[in-house]
Amino acid sequence: MAVYGGIEGGGTKFVCAIGSGPRDLQMTRFSTEGPEQTIAQAIGFFQSEAPKGGLAGVGIASFGPIDPNPDSKQFGYVTTTPKPGWAHTDFAGLVHRALGVPVGFDTDVNVAALGEHRWGNAQGLDTFIYLTVGTGIGGGGMVNGRLIHGLMHPEMGHLRVPHDRATDPFQGCCPYHGDCLEGLACGPALEARWGQRAETLSPDHPAWELEAEYLAFGLVNYLLTVSPQRIIMGGGVMEQSQLFPLIRARVQTLLNGYVQAEAVAGGIDSYIVPAALGGRAGVLGAIALGEMAALGTAPAVGRQPLAI
Amino acid sequence: MAVYGGIEGGGTKFVCAIGSGPRDLQMTRFSTEGPEQTIAQAIGFFQSEAPKGGLAGVGIASFGPIDPNPDSKQFGYVTTTPKPGWAHTDFAGLVHRALGVPVGFDTDVNVAALGEHRWGNAQGLDTFIYLTVGTGIGGGGMVNGRLIHGLMHPEMGHLRVPHDRATDPFQGCCPYHGDCLEGLACGPALEARWGQRAETLSPDHPAWELEAEYLAFGLVNYLLTVSPQRIIMGGGVMEQSQLFPLIRARVQTLLNGYVQAEAVAGGIDSYIVPAALGGRAGVLGAIALGEMAALGTAPAVGRQPLAI
Repeated sequence: MAVYGGIEGGGTKFVCAIGSGPRDLQMTRFSTEGPEQTIAQAIGFFQSEAPKGGLAGVGIASFGPIDPNPDSKQFGYVTTTPKPGWAHTDFAGLVHRALGVPVGFDTDVNVAALGEHRWGNAQGLDTFIYLTVGTGIGGGGMVNGRLIHGLMHPEMGHLRVPHDRATDPFQGCCPYHGDCLEGLACGPALEARWGQRAETLSPDHPAWELEAEYLAFGLVNYLLTVSPQRIIMGGGVMEQSQLFPLIRARVQTLLNGYVQAEAVAGGIDSYIVPAALGGRAGVLGAIALGEMAALGTAPAVGRQPLAI
Repeated sequence: MAVYGGIEGGGTKFVCAIGSGPRDLQMTRFSTEGPEQTIAQAIGFFQSEAPKGGLAGVGIASFGPIDPNPDSKQFGYVTTTPKPGWAHTDFAGLVHRALGVPVGFDTDVNVAALGEHRWGNAQGLDTFIYLTVGTGIGGGGMVNGRLIHGLMHPEMGHLRVPHDRATDPFQGCCPYHGDCLEGLACGPALEARWGQRAETLSPDHPAWELEAEYLAFGLVNYLLTVSPQRIIMGGGVMEQSQLFPLIRARVQTLLNGYVQAEAVAGGIDSYIVPAALGGRAGVLGAIALGEMAALGTAPAVGRQPLAI
């Protein structure tokens, strides 16, 4: 049976895996250093650990911004990141040239969405949103059965949302936008606002009600824009499971009966849900993307796509 | 050559057309009364005016909310509208049974987006947003080459956006959400805030700067959610052409260099544009949808779709 390589390349750590799905995953992880060293370490893992016959394809879930456009000369690159050394790195190209197999490439959140679509809570859906709330806030997902790209890729964390400075004087911590959604509701925003790390705030701390309010603004805006069949939430902040009922209630309040689809009006508990794959959504999605790269059903460095 | 019927069914007026595109359109318009009478009037127009051989298909651009899901028993219906008599009207079914041809059915804004895609400013794009700003605010468009549906259809006018009540104490006029985007920026909101009809405000009135600010919040949020290749704006309020430069500048300020794609960072004048088809986008889109219904490339009442 063919096996694939998956790379979840994050700004602070890399997770690499070999396998064909959740049941046979062989994983490793290491911290993210400069691009040459870190990508070489990923390549070395695949070279030493891949079974006889090698990998049929590799998928990369990359931190960004990236160029996911297969018609671009920079397809497969990390582009303008401020992370030292990484700007304009030919991430997918380096992996392809070392391993000689097709390499699929997308954003970390789109690939995590793909993982949830293949093996998690988005199975069978063609339009859904995957939002991760942690050090930053990122969103991806599918519309009409394919990952969202358009001009580039979504940057859903940076939506502008209502911010009542009378009740929440915190200015927001986004270096670009101040009080965009990420600036108000990412993990570091919680820490800056309340003076303690988010995971040390008790489950009944008022921080969570406010956090749910901001996240609900984001969710309502995604919902009204693409009409997803489900919204999946992951990331470190969402490990605070008390957030889910608070967010669901707040979304209902904000919609105020306007969206009468039963999934939203009556079934909100199965409409806004945690990632089924938890922290493995990204690397499993990368395995799925590696398979699609091998089959030609996703754009890949080193393989012409089929007509899809 | 095959010709098609198009119905732009609005809450206040109906526009019907027969033709195959912008060059051969035969149109009529009449006010929207009860569903039986109004739909019969549309059917009568097609029956008396269609050329020998009849229409190959009909497309309907309907006010909403509607059910555009071809797998639903209510496909083709106007659903829960407060408009007297129209709730749960089998709009597409009535037209299909009278004319015996496939009938495509979608929201007014999605169909206008389709018109712009076929003959207007979205030609060749696979991911774009079409926003209409008038009596209400509605949005539609395509992602991955197909109209946005998901669970139901977009309701982009109702996004929650920042609202500084110190500088703009107007409470908003949306009956569901108060100060959502539509509540703050639709035509009636302008009239309520400034005490005169929008079209009577002079082009240098401060109303337009504020209007541009709200619309830019919406556009930035759509942009960050689906990464459109272009945003097209139509509707009565957007006939105030001084709004375009104000909106473009405000979008740039809000993004603050975060989206570095050249189309946004450098080419904003051709990124946020008026509808090329103007007020005919809806009815021309309905003609295009009628053709797709006939060909089986869009879901239609009275025809099995091709595998698409």
